[in-house]
Amino acid sequence: MSRIVLALGGNALGNTPQKQLELVKNTSRAIADIIEPGNEVVIVHGNGPQVGMIHLAMSIAAGEDEKIPIMPYPECGAMSQGYIGYHLQQSIGNELRLRKISKPVASIITQVVVNETDEAFKDPTKPVGRFYSKEESDIIAASSGAVFIEDAGRGYRQVVASPAPEKIVELETIKRLVSAGEVVIAAGGGGIPIIETADGPKGVMAVIDKDRSAALLAKELDADMLFILTAVEKVSLNYNTDKQEDIDTMTAEEAKRYIKEGHFAKGSMLPKIEACLDFLEYKPGVKAVISSLECAKPAIEGKTGTVLC
Amino acid sequence: MSRIVLALGGNALGNTPQKQLELVKNTSRAIADIIEPGNEVVIVHGNGPQVGMIHLAMSIAAGEDEKIPIMPYPECGAMSQGYIGYHLQQSIGNELRLRKISKPVASIITQVVVNETDEAFKDPTKPVGRFYSKEESDIIAASSGAVFIEDAGRGYRQVVASPAPEKIVELETIKRLVSAGEVVIAAGGGGIPIIETADGPKGVMAVIDKDRSAALLAKELDADMLFILTAVEKVSLNYNTDKQEDIDTMTAEEAKRYIKEGHFAKGSMLPKIEACLDFLEYKPGVKAVISSLECAKPAIEGKTGTVLC
Repeated sequence: MSRIVLALGGNALGNTPQKQLELVKNTSRAIADIIEPGNEVVIVHGNGPQVGMIHLAMSIAAGEDEKIPIMPYPECGAMSQGYIGYHLQQSIGNELRLRKISKPVASIITQVVVNETDEAFKDPTKPVGRFYSKEESDIIAASSGAVFIEDAGRGYRQVVASPAPEKIVELETIKRLVSAGEVVIAAGGGGIPIIETADGPKGVMAVIDKDRSAALLAKELDADMLFILTAVEKVSLNYNTDKQEDIDTMTAEEAKRYIKEGHFAKGSMLPKIEACLDFLEYKPGVKAVISSLECAKPAIEGKTGTVLC
Repeated sequence: MSRIVLALGGNALGNTPQKQLELVKNTSRAIADIIEPGNEVVIVHGNGPQVGMIHLAMSIAAGEDEKIPIMPYPECGAMSQGYIGYHLQQSIGNELRLRKISKPVASIITQVVVNETDEAFKDPTKPVGRFYSKEESDIIAASSGAVFIEDAGRGYRQVVASPAPEKIVELETIKRLVSAGEVVIAAGGGGIPIIETADGPKGVMAVIDKDRSAALLAKELDADMLFILTAVEKVSLNYNTDKQEDIDTMTAEEAKRYIKEGHFAKGSMLPKIEACLDFLEYKPGVKAVISSLECAKPAIEGKTGTVLC
């Protein structure tokens, strides 16, 4: 039996509630395949499209109806944890019941502390929400201080900081539940980003990378494995070229060399490899695996995926 | 030390995120007053205005932008649990820290099973969402099957069923956490209403009364006390008349007589009294208390409030 922190990419979810309910059925079967041999599982899901949709909807509605308040990003993140957590826990619970596995499944609303002095706040890079015209974005920037960038000719989008996760506020709860054999959904979307101030904790406009939060959680939970589920079966060198070469296993040293050689795309595979390295380096003997949802079962059995150890 | 299930009325929360963050500070102080003597506390909050706001915002936005999906009511309820739970857990956690009380605070996304054959589904009575004109409501009713009623001359509102809560899906998780000394926020808004079907659990369009869910949770958790926090310090006979008489204590028999005599307003005090009776009748020796947030501390000390036992 291993303790596994599972980072679930946005492709495991959907853009509408109907589509999401459909997709999480497959996701739940893959997760149940991991739980069935007796592994302890904590799930950290992404929320990019979902929190974007919620924030956009709240913004549009606030512009149309004075009774609708402007909803800050941390609150939208909390909403997305409720929304996605509900679908996941319902679907995983059902899948376990069908397999006669008696394990509670619970979603924990999770706050993650970031540091106000994190360099990331000086250089917001993570695009969120809808596209605006130059004129619209200038007006919003002037009134709110939001930072916008021109996004590949498609218009202007707000960018927010992506600071490092420093502390998982609800860690004790998550640890208690997973130790008791429960399946836990936590730190959804990387967690609700908060800073600690003299007046107490406070939500901040930021997006924490969910793979980094998953790595932190894996360390704090003393997990045996960080399992990052993404769109590809294996990590590749020279990805998407005629020299593409899939990787079965790599050591931390090899991974670092490949990073230096520029094999992993920024904002895509790179943060996943970095999250794996972060986890690997805290304790000898643990491993990190990257594979696809479809290959979750053979990957957990060591038959495919890319293993970092 | 007692195990207390606390039902928190909508007045303990706010209509905007800013107002809610402000109001939950007071709420958290009252809750910390109850926790401080060593009581185990589970909080069931209302969500009427909040889920209404989220549903309205999603509906407005879906009409304005084709990328925004129609969001069903159960999913909006899940979002409201994330949104309110986040503010409550952050604020209660901070208040406990200030008092040097070391207790984790966690919000559990909670599904509550209702029965598809519940009579309430034949007679939807609970108004939700915005007001529509007769013409608008007719169009929505024809396309979606939604039921509308004319609401006190202010327009037409959708009404949904308010079925009885039958089972709290995440009970085991809630019990585990409260037994370990954690402060638990659960069954927010009465819980996300689901029915059990041959294809597994499914969210339904309904609103479960949060006081009834709190009573069910109190029974299932084997609690010593159900504490309903509302807008008044004490329950009254002949409320709001010149014969108003506040009640210090009443037995279940007295409460039933007062109900028959029509002392408690339908949709207001009546469901609270009924929730108390439901809790009282499951086990001898327990008690139910109704009081205001401001009087939470003296009420828990037996100095005010209305006690049913």
